[in-house]
Amino acid sequence: MINHSADPIAELVSNLKKLPGVGEKTATRFAYHILNMKKEEILSMANAIKRISDEVKLCSVCFNFTYNDPCDICSSQSRNNSVICVVEKPADLNTIEKAGIFKGRYHVLHGVIDMLNNVGPEDIKIAELINRIKNESIKEIIIALSPTTEGEATALYLQRMIKPAGIKITRLASGIPVGSALEYVDQYTLTRAMENRIEI
Amino acid sequence: MINHSADPIAELVSNLKKLPGVGEKTATRFAYHILNMKKEEILSMANAIKRISDEVKLCSVCFNFTYNDPCDICSSQSRNNSVICVVEKPADLNTIEKAGIFKGRYHVLHGVIDMLNNVGPEDIKIAELINRIKNESIKEIIIALSPTTEGEATALYLQRMIKPAGIKITRLASGIPVGSALEYVDQYTLTRAMENRIEI
Repeated sequence: MINHSADPIAELVSNLKKLPGVGEKTATRFAYHILNMKKEEILSMANAIKRISDEVKLCSVCFNFTYNDPCDICSSQSRNNSVICVVEKPADLNTIEKAGIFKGRYHVLHGVIDMLNNVGPEDIKIAELINRIKNESIKEIIIALSPTTEGEATALYLQRMIKPAGIKITRLASGIPVGSALEYVDQYTLTRAMENRIEI
Repeated sequence: MINHSADPIAELVSNLKKLPGVGEKTATRFAYHILNMKKEEILSMANAIKRISDEVKLCSVCFNFTYNDPCDICSSQSRNNSVICVVEKPADLNTIEKAGIFKGRYHVLHGVIDMLNNVGPEDIKIAELINRIKNESIKEIIIALSPTTEGEATALYLQRMIKPAGIKITRLASGIPVGSALEYVDQYTLTRAMENRIEI
């Protein structure tokens, strides 16, 4: 698996091409940029990448990426322990955290149910979520999955699994994005926005 | 200079932001992608970056980036030693090499004369080029600098410095890019294309 070429520049380019959306041209541009950086900056970048593999693990409670266990969010004293926001992946959690709109805790599923690609409920962290619901005193589960076919299917499955526990289950609203022109909104989003219209 | 944050993910994002055209959002996307890569892939990427600082230096002849000295191009037996193509930076050399259109040797100036930013002829590898012209049997110097104000000024300076040696000096043609629509070509390019028109 380790790509070891005699030419360090070629090796760097082939490694950088693994980044999302980065092809030969961008990888080459990145490589030449790195070649022009100061030695300590290059070592700092190499070390930052290495640290990811050495120090980052999954939180044993919420399964977010973390360098301490339980993670900062799970062990925080100032967050609401009775609400869990369920997300597909750590990057989604990060997006919600950055918006600063939620002060409860999270649960990262690490995927959504996707039968076409052989991802069933047992392949993602659903059992772990059910366990938390049993053992912690949870009042609300917010399902924050993307409104895609797989996200919807997963939400439906979660709803069926959690409902018996008698806990409030909510989903993020879907509708027209703030700031976007109605003219260009796709029909599915528009249908949802119409269905979920709010009296003012 | 070394950015050492307690949080390895934050540290990685801040390091990746040093790449050209990469802001907070893209750096975060890259970081989460790296977090999902296999351990050996992550280590391979970190190592590839580290190798750049450990193994890459400048060729003592042409000043291209290289891991052996003189570089593969300068020490090649199958290239034309009597023609030198002068470029601004290693990335430019790489672009010409990839096109496979030139079989002579190179000289990398590592910059162009730019008086507004205090880059004079003595700040780039011009003296070294003159030295090569004196010591090697060169028949032609091809100036392959970008047709910008600074590139043109540097080309003019080189022309004045090299002319007394009685060597043929050429420049890459500038004109309308192949495949582009005349309608959208800027006036400077069009002027150049008109001036340099070729009888057919």
